Amino acid sequence: MLARERIRSALHHWRIAILVVGGLLLVSCKGDREKESTRLALVARTGPATSPGDSTTRYADDGQWVRPGKDFQGTRFSGLTEINNQNVQNLHVFGTFSLGTNRGVEAAPIVSGTTMYIVTPFPNYVYALDLTKDGMPTKWSYKPHPVNASQGVACCDVVNRGLVVDGGKVIFNTLDARTIALDAATGKELWVTQVGNINLGESVTMAPLVVKGRVIVGVSGGEFGIRGWLKGLDENSGKVVWTAFHTGPDKDVLIGSNFKPFYKSDTVKDLGVSTWPADQWKIGGAGAWGWVTYDPELDLIYYGTANPGPWNPEVRPGDNKWSATLFARRPETGEAIWAYQLSPHDEHDYDAVNEDIVVDMPWKGQQRKVLLRPDRNGYFYVMDRQTGEVLSAEPYGFINTTTGVDLKTGRLQYNPEKATRTGETVRYSCPAAPGVKDWQPAAYSPRTGLVYIPHQNLCMDEEGVEPNYIAGTPYVGTNVKMYAGPGGHRGLFDAWDPVGQHIVWSIKEDLPVWSGALVTAGDVAFYGTMDGWFKAVDARSGKELWKFKTGSGIISQPMTYSYNGKQYIAVLSGVGGWSGAIVAGGLDARDSSAALGFVNAMKDLPQKSTKGGILYVFAL
Amino acid sequence: MLARERIRSALHHWRIAILVVGGLLLVSCKGDREKESTRLALVARTGPATSPGDSTTRYADDGQWVRPGKDFQGTRFSGLTEINNQNVQNLHVFGTFSLGTNRGVEAAPIVSGTTMYIVTPFPNYVYALDLTKDGMPTKWSYKPHPVNASQGVACCDVVNRGLVVDGGKVIFNTLDARTIALDAATGKELWVTQVGNINLGESVTMAPLVVKGRVIVGVSGGEFGIRGWLKGLDENSGKVVWTAFHTGPDKDVLIGSNFKPFYKSDTVKDLGVSTWPADQWKIGGAGAWGWVTYDPELDLIYYGTANPGPWNPEVRPGDNKWSATLFARRPETGEAIWAYQLSPHDEHDYDAVNEDIVVDMPWKGQQRKVLLRPDRNGYFYVMDRQTGEVLSAEPYGFINTTTGVDLKTGRLQYNPEKATRTGETVRYSCPAAPGVKDWQPAAYSPRTGLVYIPHQNLCMDEEGVEPNYIAGTPYVGTNVKMYAGPGGHRGLFDAWDPVGQHIVWSIKEDLPVWSGALVTAGDVAFYGTMDGWFKAVDARSGKELWKFKTGSGIISQPMTYSYNGKQYIAVLSGVGGWSGAIVAGGLDARDSSAALGFVNAMKDLPQKSTKGGILYVFAL
Repeated sequence: MLARERIRSALHHWRIAILVVGGLLLVSCKGDREKESTRLALVARTGPATSPGDSTTRYADDGQWVRPGKDFQGTRFSGLTEINNQNVQNLHVFGTFSLGTNRGVEAAPIVSGTTMYIVTPFPNYVYALDLTKDGMPTKWSYKPHPVNASQGVACCDVVNRGLVVDGGKVIFNTLDARTIALDAATGKELWVTQVGNINLGESVTMAPLVVKGRVIVGVSGGEFGIRGWLKGLDENSGKVVWTAFHTGPDKDVLIGSNFKPFYKSDTVKDLGVSTWPADQWKIGGAGAWGWVTYDPELDLIYYGTANPGPWNPEVRPGDNKWSATLFARRPETGEAIWAYQLSPHDEHDYDAVNEDIVVDMPWKGQQRKVLLRPDRNGYFYVMDRQTGEVLSAEPYGFINTTTGVDLKTGRLQYNPEKATRTGETVRYSCPAAPGVKDWQPAAYSPRTGLVYIPHQNLCMDEEGVEPNYIAGTPYVGTNVKMYAGPGGHRGLFDAWDPVGQHIVWSIKEDLPVWSGALVTAGDVAFYGTMDGWFKAVDARSGKELWKFKTGSGIISQPMTYSYNGKQYIAVLSGVGGWSGAIVAGGLDARDSSAALGFVNAMKDLPQKSTKGGILYVFAL
Repeated sequence: MLARERIRSALHHWRIAILVVGGLLLVSCKGDREKESTRLALVARTGPATSPGDSTTRYADDGQWVRPGKDFQGTRFSGLTEINNQNVQNLHVFGTFSLGTNRGVEAAPIVSGTTMYIVTPFPNYVYALDLTKDGMPTKWSYKPHPVNASQGVACCDVVNRGLVVDGGKVIFNTLDARTIALDAATGKELWVTQVGNINLGESVTMAPLVVKGRVIVGVSGGEFGIRGWLKGLDENSGKVVWTAFHTGPDKDVLIGSNFKPFYKSDTVKDLGVSTWPADQWKIGGAGAWGWVTYDPELDLIYYGTANPGPWNPEVRPGDNKWSATLFARRPETGEAIWAYQLSPHDEHDYDAVNEDIVVDMPWKGQQRKVLLRPDRNGYFYVMDRQTGEVLSAEPYGFINTTTGVDLKTGRLQYNPEKATRTGETVRYSCPAAPGVKDWQPAAYSPRTGLVYIPHQNLCMDEEGVEPNYIAGTPYVGTNVKMYAGPGGHRGLFDAWDPVGQHIVWSIKEDLPVWSGALVTAGDVAFYGTMDGWFKAVDARSGKELWKFKTGSGIISQPMTYSYNGKQYIAVLSGVGGWSGAIVAGGLDARDSSAALGFVNAMKDLPQKSTKGGILYVFAL
């Protein structure tokens, strides 16, 4: 299918009924393929309760929320039902807490036992709030000695995507590339591991995943000429047990005899070297700053690697493996089991760090073990998680830079008209560099079988320029100017049917929806907006049920927990991140190329949101 | 009366019944003189509704709150009754807004018409929030071009005590000593006047008072060797119409033929020169950074001047006039009508900037026009506001540095044992430098006849050292170390009967109560704590009726307004100020003398509060 056909087809799928509700456009869509869509409520085998394994079982307790993604599978689904689509309009503010910071807050509040834990943006303070006491006072706080230079190597605000609690430890990463474990009861430092070198542009913004005694940590810095990696640290000592590089020879990538990618083209030796010109792989980017999920049954972790560096693709002919690649690895050894490159020779910063939600679902008549992946390149992938086969890759947003995914070869088909060229400005490339969805994680409800996707609708003008590598300094090679995509709205909160492969309902938002999603067994989905609204919508219809305006913009991850038999919903408010850097970083709206071109699309944000860092807890 | 007798007598007056309520000590006191205390509900002639004059009448509208003190009289009393002592427990968070700053917030939210206006700490952003719209979006915001050097000459955090709305203009001061008028509808700059010179240590933190076409502005900087002043600017042009210095020859102080102080000793010519050694008056401090109130009938403004500089009294023998002095002046010309020096030759930084609440009340059988003044030196003054006569000066906290006020001479009697001496540490001087009450304004209810006083209970060790004057740098000459006073609690929220001259009820708080007070015709009094609790208590009994934990500590001024027939209560949360500098300024708890010795008393604050800047609006 050609690009235009693909777009026409996608638009055709969405018979869009537009209804103006309270100043917003609520878009209700019905897919052509609805007939194919069997609701998964009865058949889905995912969700907290079905996961085996010691720590998995522990976290089946819906009263807690011990990691940003809720469960190993990354569903962000809670079985709690006290707050539901019949009473959510009665939610009120139960408590608040000021983080003491004013930069973009992307983390999720974490609840383990009777304590809530929060890690802030740089300088990465950690707070433990006592849920048993009136006003949730601070039980302890921890302030890492900050390495201020790390702010200079953060491409997109100084965010942190959250901490994890495991085995009585609070484990988190700092912008200056340390992984730190604290005693969850006292805040006492247990170990500190310097995992990266900020002088080479390595920073860490992602939330670690702890699984089978390993703390899985990946690096940020694809705009600074790093050589990307994922590491496995020993949970007890902090010692680095394994390092998997994402470029270079197979032995560095931890590709060995058990590596069985689905597509034949990926079976050639040392592709991490041969798909790059000369020594470019040594500074080829491909970090891992997004989400890692885990299937306890197959004992595999899943995560995507980031964009190749520099952005300008003309200086790195070849597929640039293993950038923008989905890896399945053994958590204990890091050994690669399969890999699939989502965006070979990434032309547009289609960084592949998005989440892989672990779900068992029916597919063409049989039950399959799949990954659900709304990728940054704009396609919603359904992947066989045992083999790495692409079962489906349908667009869930407006795309003109590529024309689809060839399911025979697994290969993304680029539109040559939109290729980035040095010294020439290519206009109206869609999606823009942050993709149809960036890091902001989707949620999956086994009750509705739908994936709730917060995302953006942006296009861009793109011009390649000659990049120069100087260690630890920006290494991008592309000038970008972003703006709203078709329709003029910059954000969407959509419900996607992964079986029927279509949007079920869609809410248009003026600003990019840069927050994560939460969905509960009360059939309510939650998300936030960059101008501060925290919203609850009916998980089946998308109807807005409730909203509250928080103090700053929301770009973080909502969660829910229970204490003493009562359900609470919590979210952090604090605008920033790449999309909100104009406010959090105080950037000048006149500089269109600031924040890698995002500022141009967000010139009105300073009138709509103020800097902040506030926890909100809601209850009935 | 000697010091010890005075203290014994004061303690005797308070027959203290202690009751532990929810972890707090609620102290109920009954004064010996209760028989003298006629409740003022029927006779009080103050309050918004009784004030003549164009703009006064306008602000009788209890739906608005156009200046921090509510009315010209500074009562901080609202006639609104929807929220009252029967239903206040049902208050909930209606809305929030992040100020985008993280330093101490001392301002009051201001409501004029259907807009709420807020000025933040340095860099002194101004926000106009639209009350007519869902979520109170920002109508406009204004960011002054900041002069960062001004942070260096702020003694005690970079606070701002609020803006005023008058005649369609928003008028406020900036830390870097500018007074700025904006169009209240659009935020457009109307005029900017540089009123002080930060290179000489002049900053401005106070809220202006606008009266009769004059914008009254005073200077901060008593710790930097400034020569203090109050200015009257033309409201329309911003032009400085008059400047009244607080030291120097009479002509500079605007003391002329109409100057009629009550006490004969104040009638000598040029006391602003003769009560200082040599040229010391030129760098003698005595700014005006607190409250200005106004009696429209007598056409007099009332305000107190700040401490003499440097703190070390041995380098400035004499009364150091007109430091620590209450002035009555004509607003249009600045002409002094009377003056009364509260703390002559101020030994302990008993800065006299506290408020003068304008009240008509019965006194020994006749109705008197008085000022109610809970002074920093620890005495609650009842002053005849026509003449400057001290009618009463009773201690409202623990005092051992002075032994009382001689009502014949009006003179404060110092305890020579507690005199500050160079090279010697005098221990256990009470109250400490911030006094029994600092800037945090009390409220007065004409219904109960009581004054609601938020204050602290601190003592100090004090050592004089040789100060050196270098323009624009700290010039203090005293090392101070503060700690909790008798009883161990550091704060109090008291109801004082100005007729009976005794405490009616008293709430002990662990931390200094550094917020202002609000009282309403619903017989509820509101205040905040430095660990973030916003509290409502019964105005007659002091019983705690409701509390909510805000995100940061509260050191600001609560207010109330109505929109569309509904009553709201608003307060800003953001710890800091002198008392909270350890958090707002990130000071090291190991340095006891930091923040002029306040840090020593607040070493636990970082465990109890985090930096912030958040508006909270509450409603039923």
